[in-house]
Amino acid sequence: MLEIGIVGGSGYGAIELMRLLNQHKEVKIKYVFSHSKSGDDIKETYPHLQDNINVPFSSLDVDKVDCDLIFFATPSNVSKHFIPKLIKRGIKVIDLSGDFRLKDPAVYEKYYGEKPAEQSVLDEAEYSLAEWSNINKNSTNVIANPGCFPTAILLSLHPLLENNLINKESIIIDAKTGVSGAGRSLSQNAHFGEANENFSAYKIGTHKHTPEIEQYLSQVSGSDIKVMFTPHLVPMTRGILATIYVDLNEHMTGEALYNLYSKIYEEKPFVRIRALGELPKTKEVLGSNFCDIGIYVDEERNKAVIVAVIDNLVKGASGQAIQNMNILYGFNENEGLNLLPVYP
Amino acid sequence: MLEIGIVGGSGYGAIELMRLLNQHKEVKIKYVFSHSKSGDDIKETYPHLQDNINVPFSSLDVDKVDCDLIFFATPSNVSKHFIPKLIKRGIKVIDLSGDFRLKDPAVYEKYYGEKPAEQSVLDEAEYSLAEWSNINKNSTNVIANPGCFPTAILLSLHPLLENNLINKESIIIDAKTGVSGAGRSLSQNAHFGEANENFSAYKIGTHKHTPEIEQYLSQVSGSDIKVMFTPHLVPMTRGILATIYVDLNEHMTGEALYNLYSKIYEEKPFVRIRALGELPKTKEVLGSNFCDIGIYVDEERNKAVIVAVIDNLVKGASGQAIQNMNILYGFNENEGLNLLPVYP
Amino acid sequence: MLEIGIVGGSGYGAIELMRLLNQHKEVKIKYVFSHSKSGDDIKETYPHLQDNINVPFSSLDVDKVDCDLIFFATPSNVSKHFIPKLIKRGIKVIDLSGDFRLKDPAVYEKYYGEKPAEQSVLDEAEYSLAEWSNINKNSTNVIANPGCFPTAILLSLHPLLENNLINKESIIIDAKTGVSGAGRSLSQNAHFGEANENFSAYKIGTHKHTPEIEQYLSQVSGSDIKVMFTPHLVPMTRGILATIYVDLNEHMTGEALYNLYSKIYEEKPFVRIRALGELPKTKEVLGSNFCDIGIYVDEERNKAVIVAVIDNLVKGASGQAIQNMNILYGFNENEGLNLLPVYP
Amino acid sequence: MLEIGIVGGSGYGAIELMRLLNQHKEVKIKYVFSHSKSGDDIKETYPHLQDNINVPFSSLDVDKVDCDLIFFATPSNVSKHFIPKLIKRGIKVIDLSGDFRLKDPAVYEKYYGEKPAEQSVLDEAEYSLAEWSNINKNSTNVIANPGCFPTAILLSLHPLLENNLINKESIIIDAKTGVSGAGRSLSQNAHFGEANENFSAYKIGTHKHTPEIEQYLSQVSGSDIKVMFTPHLVPMTRGILATIYVDLNEHMTGEALYNLYSKIYEEKPFVRIRALGELPKTKEVLGSNFCDIGIYVDEERNKAVIVAVIDNLVKGASGQAIQNMNILYGFNENEGLNLLPVYP
Repeated sequence: MLEIGIVGGSGYGAIELMRLLNQHKEVKIKYVFSHSKSGDDIKETYPHLQDNINVPFSSLDVDKVDCDLIFFATPSNVSKHFIPKLIKRGIKVIDLSGDFRLKDPAVYEKYYGEKPAEQSVLDEAEYSLAEWSNINKNSTNVIANPGCFPTAILLSLHPLLENNLINKESIIIDAKTGVSGAGRSLSQNAHFGEANENFSAYKIGTHKHTPEIEQYLSQVSGSDIKVMFTPHLVPMTRGILATIYVDLNEHMTGEALYNLYSKIYEEKPFVRIRALGELPKTKEVLGSNFCDIGIYVDEERNKAVIVAVIDNLVKGASGQAIQNMNILYGFNENEGLNLLPVYP
Repeated sequence: MLEIGIVGGSGYGAIELMRLLNQHKEVKIKYVFSHSKSGDDIKETYPHLQDNINVPFSSLDVDKVDCDLIFFATPSNVSKHFIPKLIKRGIKVIDLSGDFRLKDPAVYEKYYGEKPAEQSVLDEAEYSLAEWSNINKNSTNVIANPGCFPTAILLSLHPLLENNLINKESIIIDAKTGVSGAGRSLSQNAHFGEANENFSAYKIGTHKHTPEIEQYLSQVSGSDIKVMFTPHLVPMTRGILATIYVDLNEHMTGEALYNLYSKIYEEKPFVRIRALGELPKTKEVLGSNFCDIGIYVDEERNKAVIVAVIDNLVKGASGQAIQNMNILYGFNENEGLNLLPVYP
Repeated sequence: MLEIGIVGGSGYGAIELMRLLNQHKEVKIKYVFSHSKSGDDIKETYPHLQDNINVPFSSLDVDKVDCDLIFFATPSNVSKHFIPKLIKRGIKVIDLSGDFRLKDPAVYEKYYGEKPAEQSVLDEAEYSLAEWSNINKNSTNVIANPGCFPTAILLSLHPLLENNLINKESIIIDAKTGVSGAGRSLSQNAHFGEANENFSAYKIGTHKHTPEIEQYLSQVSGSDIKVMFTPHLVPMTRGILATIYVDLNEHMTGEALYNLYSKIYEEKPFVRIRALGELPKTKEVLGSNFCDIGIYVDEERNKAVIVAVIDNLVKGASGQAIQNMNILYGFNENEGLNLLPVYP
Repeated sequence: MLEIGIVGGSGYGAIELMRLLNQHKEVKIKYVFSHSKSGDDIKETYPHLQDNINVPFSSLDVDKVDCDLIFFATPSNVSKHFIPKLIKRGIKVIDLSGDFRLKDPAVYEKYYGEKPAEQSVLDEAEYSLAEWSNINKNSTNVIANPGCFPTAILLSLHPLLENNLINKESIIIDAKTGVSGAGRSLSQNAHFGEANENFSAYKIGTHKHTPEIEQYLSQVSGSDIKVMFTPHLVPMTRGILATIYVDLNEHMTGEALYNLYSKIYEEKPFVRIRALGELPKTKEVLGSNFCDIGIYVDEERNKAVIVAVIDNLVKGASGQAIQNMNILYGFNENEGLNLLPVYP
């Protein structure tokens, strides 16, 4: 049994890790770390876990902690202070936060407001979009788990850029997320009276997932990519839908594009390409690790629209982290993740 | 034109007062007070008021403020510090908070956690459930506007107790409120991820509206009344529904009870008795000052169920406050309140 | 492997059975029956099952169907036409509908509007509230799975009546359900524009779960029990919360009642008694088979309030049906049901 | 007093007309027509109107109806059968449906599935986006009230095209609507269990508002405009938000664009341009006739994003219809529409 710890234990990422790992045959949750709640029973904060997750909250001591792998489900600018020491002690890390995703320290500082971890650790960290992962079972010590928006968006755009099918200047991403994307911390935007029966755009041009998307796409395409990325807030708890507009380089039928996607994702159990003419809905993946993708081509104007949905807390965070763990340790890729969507 | 001021200007009660008073022909909003936002434009906090409410936030100075009437839409334990001075200066007050509702200081202290205002001012304050108001146009200076739950509940129970129709020990009130009842202040219970798709009971036996309900019912019935009162939180923004269970003293048909309620409320424009067999829904009063009441009698067991709905921010707060103002100044009772529900 | 069939395949009960049975190690889904959609791929109706549930819809032919067990997740007045023939052919049945729950044909007819199945089959059917089941592994052929409201209510009241702790005339049940309780069939009450941001009571005194509750409670207590039962509709998809008011026969502390419940449900993995002072919320069981129960005692007035929550589609329907199957076949009681709540 | 009739009386458009016209000083509601409910009290269908709208439903007889103006709030392909006769009898009409919006019969037939009204009546109908209306008080007899999506979109794009500021091939419109946009008719997509906690795109490239948008934009710009238009469904009742992406013809600062919009809409009371850096939310216009517009310019890449919000049932339907009536009859433009948003 792999012994694991979870940091950020009172947040949504952490309890989603517990929900999923509770199903996982190869793993034992040894620690749940929460500085602010150290010593408390988890059920005091999360009664829904009563009688089932019986590890108390404790404080992370990087010099004493004794386990195989630690998940960080923390806000930005936290994990970077702990991870360098942990990997020196031989503990592997999967970081759900943004601390190790960006390779360029200047870009990190611009979007995250602080300096990142030292460059050597940044360089060592493997950004792992699980379906296109370069994890090396021997040498990878730190996995930077992708952000929620980037997961849906990059799975959608990877095939187009890898195959050089689109005008690289044309990418427009209109993305929508449920409110849980903002986490458990209180804010006026997540206050029920103001989030409910309300829909809004936010952070056009300034969202910190923008450079993460651009970095990945630039790598895949081998050229510098800029995108127009507009996030929106949806009055629902879970779910991301990204509507992506691109100009095709040359004429292509919807069927041809559908066939391309189907073939590329044929062996990937968590990416489901929808039949042509059908568009996915966020609820159709709720609670599961699926990313469902629908395709539309305006054949007259050579434009394509890709619509992708994920559960932001599963495929967009904790589920993909477990998928990455499965890849890292050679477990079945869907171990612990073999859950159908909760519908309705 | 009556010149008025609003204290607690950044809260939901205040902006609902602005929405409604903006329609009122006899009133001019002269001040909107908010200590924390003094000097700011209202539209910075509430963009929905842009171009329409152009008074800036200011700080209340009780010695200098110059208007006819002030509404307090403040949390508990605020208005009691200001009102005594204001009425000495001849400014009338309608208090939407709980500070002047309870006549017994010990009960106030038990439920509100602090000492109330001085007894002489408490005694002078008129608790005014608008349909059963004792406001005296000459002598009333302070109106204690009822709480949201009590409004729906007391309008429902008043006819039964005034006519001595029920066993006074039997009253069970199962009440439900939308999340805006908790106001604009942030809390985990009002955090979207936790309020949405969730339903819960809270504060059984300890809610501060319990003594307010019991005080009023005891007055109407002339005897000491205790109730079992259980509030619940509904995943919606606005609305209260109270389901009230009582044992009838003697056999009574549903029709007889319906006729009694219809007659009692015949002249009250904001209380609508629903046809027998029909039960009101919260959305059917949303945005309006109506209280709709449905009646059910179990004729075999001599039990009755009264179901009442209001919009907690209108009839349960700001709308009733304006109705009380209309009574106080002899305006048409429905001036500024002549709004149909927003449906759907 | 147990081979099973599911009737009513296009409804919510059926897809919830698929979600859960997909996790179950001892079961293979052989048939999914839907008369109206026979021949269709399931994914055309339910894209969320794409690539995972690959049995097509087919029509049930009672003379030819070949499997061990059939679940009926059908509307009322359907299963009664099929079950008698199936059990003659040696196929066991778990019926999620109301057809075999009531023993008295006159009561069935009053509430369900048609004559029930023949008395001999009715008599043979075992009503199985899983925690208090009398299933006989050898002789039980038809299990009547309890209704959603009765499940939460009877688990709450069983300890009180079995131990003769309450005034049997005093039971008042104020119950609330998410909209999925009404199933997938379209209706104005379940139309988004009218269900959203709305809360209402319905069918006071006439809901078909009333006689089911009274029948069970009468059996447990050995005397004729009548209840006041008021269902309400909550603007959320899943979840039931029942608030139950009773008069205690004699003085009892909250702690004593808590201890009683804790002891009685100590060995029942799906019933969780909450710490005294804590009340359960529907979201804390969403997606899981738990029934969480909170307790409040008004020690001055000898009244108790029991608050119970379930997921209406899991513990209130498909989950409990699988739990009953596990009992019937001697599988682990929580096989296929070992899912933590989806929170938030 | 202008005597008016409303056709389609049991739909959402009609009851919103009643809510707003109930406030209007110059109008009397003489008829509410509903073929299916003729003879019924309105309160049987809409209890929220009890005691306030007391006209019964009746059937429209075009030969006998006697009033000044009729609003059609009907589904497609209804009003075209009645309007020609009504205008012959001297009754003016405001049509909220799509029947008279498209000038090209072939386009109408493609999108609406039937032949339109005869060309002479089509030609006579005035498409009136109220802020840019060409209504002639003497000669206009039929007003085609714009669709809900087009209203938000055209108010946003009009300034850009009129001033020739953008690449006409570049327009991408990602639009989102609350569920009430689909009306009161039942459908699986509007079934609560499936609409709640769900977000989806639909009808990419095929929505019937596409030609309406293109026709208007082509007129304003004097050239043939095609747009990419993707509607989405939001789990809320009311509200539309359109996010519109365009390529600017030349470099322009955000401030310059903001100033342009502010100046253009300075005298239009219902269009509010938000301060630069601020984006509007749908709830900030809920229940009101406002269209709020936010502006973002990516100055490096010469791209602009316009975000507009309306209440689809008010500015997107009934409110704009009344605004058009006010223009037609020379009433104050905001008579009956002087309502602040219902917030929260």
